[in-house]
Amino acid sequence: MNGKITIIGIGPGDKSMITEEVKEEIKSATEIIGYKKYLERLKPDRNINFYPSDNRNEIERAVLAFELATKGKNVLIVSSGDPGIFAMSAVVFETLENGPLQWFEVDIKVLPGITSMLAASARIGAPLGNDFCVINLSNNLKPWSLIKQRIISAIKGDFVTVLYNPRSLARPNTFLKTLKIFREHCKEDRFIIFARSVSTKNEKIEVVSLKEASETMADMQTLVIIGSSFSRVFHKKLNKIFYTPRSIF
Amino acid sequence: MNGKITIIGIGPGDKSMITEEVKEEIKSATEIIGYKKYLERLKPDRNINFYPSDNRNEIERAVLAFELATKGKNVLIVSSGDPGIFAMSAVVFETLENGPLQWFEVDIKVLPGITSMLAASARIGAPLGNDFCVINLSNNLKPWSLIKQRIISAIKGDFVTVLYNPRSLARPNTFLKTLKIFREHCKEDRFIIFARSVSTKNEKIEVVSLKEASETMADMQTLVIIGSSFSRVFHKKLNKIFYTPRSIF
Repeated sequence: MNGKITIIGIGPGDKSMITEEVKEEIKSATEIIGYKKYLERLKPDRNINFYPSDNRNEIERAVLAFELATKGKNVLIVSSGDPGIFAMSAVVFETLENGPLQWFEVDIKVLPGITSMLAASARIGAPLGNDFCVINLSNNLKPWSLIKQRIISAIKGDFVTVLYNPRSLARPNTFLKTLKIFREHCKEDRFIIFARSVSTKNEKIEVVSLKEASETMADMQTLVIIGSSFSRVFHKKLNKIFYTPRSIF
Repeated sequence: MNGKITIIGIGPGDKSMITEEVKEEIKSATEIIGYKKYLERLKPDRNINFYPSDNRNEIERAVLAFELATKGKNVLIVSSGDPGIFAMSAVVFETLENGPLQWFEVDIKVLPGITSMLAASARIGAPLGNDFCVINLSNNLKPWSLIKQRIISAIKGDFVTVLYNPRSLARPNTFLKTLKIFREHCKEDRFIIFARSVSTKNEKIEVVSLKEASETMADMQTLVIIGSSFSRVFHKKLNKIFYTPRSIF
């Protein structure tokens, strides 16, 4: 008898941003796999087999899920944000495509979640009100040449640009190089949002100009949004509002 | 005394995809503004003042919200999906920027929702597992020249491309022209997802090649996702799985 795998997104941090179907799934799960920091957020009130793992062990997580599911277990894989955006869904399906035939018998379901760009946008206004590009800056996952090609294309299309995983200790310079490309092509008053740990107690949101931006404003907990040439910032009392008009004529 | 405006996203259709904070907000609202078809989905069990409006009346909705809020009312503005993605948030903030000073005293909160690209992706695999662009094809909102520039940039960056509002009766040819641009630049085996009315009783998801795609596969209820050159499709029993590998080397 085969079990099943459900890949869930638990949103950016605050549990009030979890959907009802994800909450229900967590209530009935018996085996839960995920990055250890995400599993800490679940705090279940009953006996569950937890399989916490370190960051970057995504493929091992997917293999473990299929092994448990082919033994009849109902397995939950937990992603922060949404599982489909630079997260576990792609890893699970790639692992399946290259896996043994019996894994194809396992039912797999994906339940979406609030990805951090939606949560960050909601806090600052409406930066994603018009067309946008989303780029994962981690060059553990693809060559810098492709990242650079995508950044330049985003600028040429005058998209709003969202940067996930802008900077880490292991690759301190990717975001610096990205800022440099924007400075070569865009005016220095272009607006940038640095949204750190949205909806957690460490939430911090800054809006600066391209001129004022520095690479140390970003880390692995930060989402960066760079406006298009149409994006606007204005003050509402003490707060900055950042939005991109829906209509451009 | 000022009221407040809360702009909420109620997800793509199924109420189990609504977040807890949005549910709570709906429970306590007294004045609810939105496109009439979205308001029909709420079915509240008590007395609420509903202000349904036709499609395209977005600015009137925003003005009404500020008028009610400056009279002390607690106003909810309802968007399908997420309010920040091509929806009411940008309209509200643009209306505020150009509005009278007293509107700046109104508290405004945005609560994110599951936007249709996340729900569609979850149904078919993980098409957004790597970098992607999101383009609203409605040329009611911007000139075709800008849309075309963005489509070509998305192709040059080898992004996955997500198309919101691909086609309507009022503009039957935008999506046809988009397909033509892709055919000029990409191989004809490039994969395309047509995801219609995800998570409703009318849900229909098709995966075809660029060669097989026709403009009549899309309408205003359809989200289109066109893979990058790295995207893959394979069969899991009778289902097609579409994913874009997270890592590309």
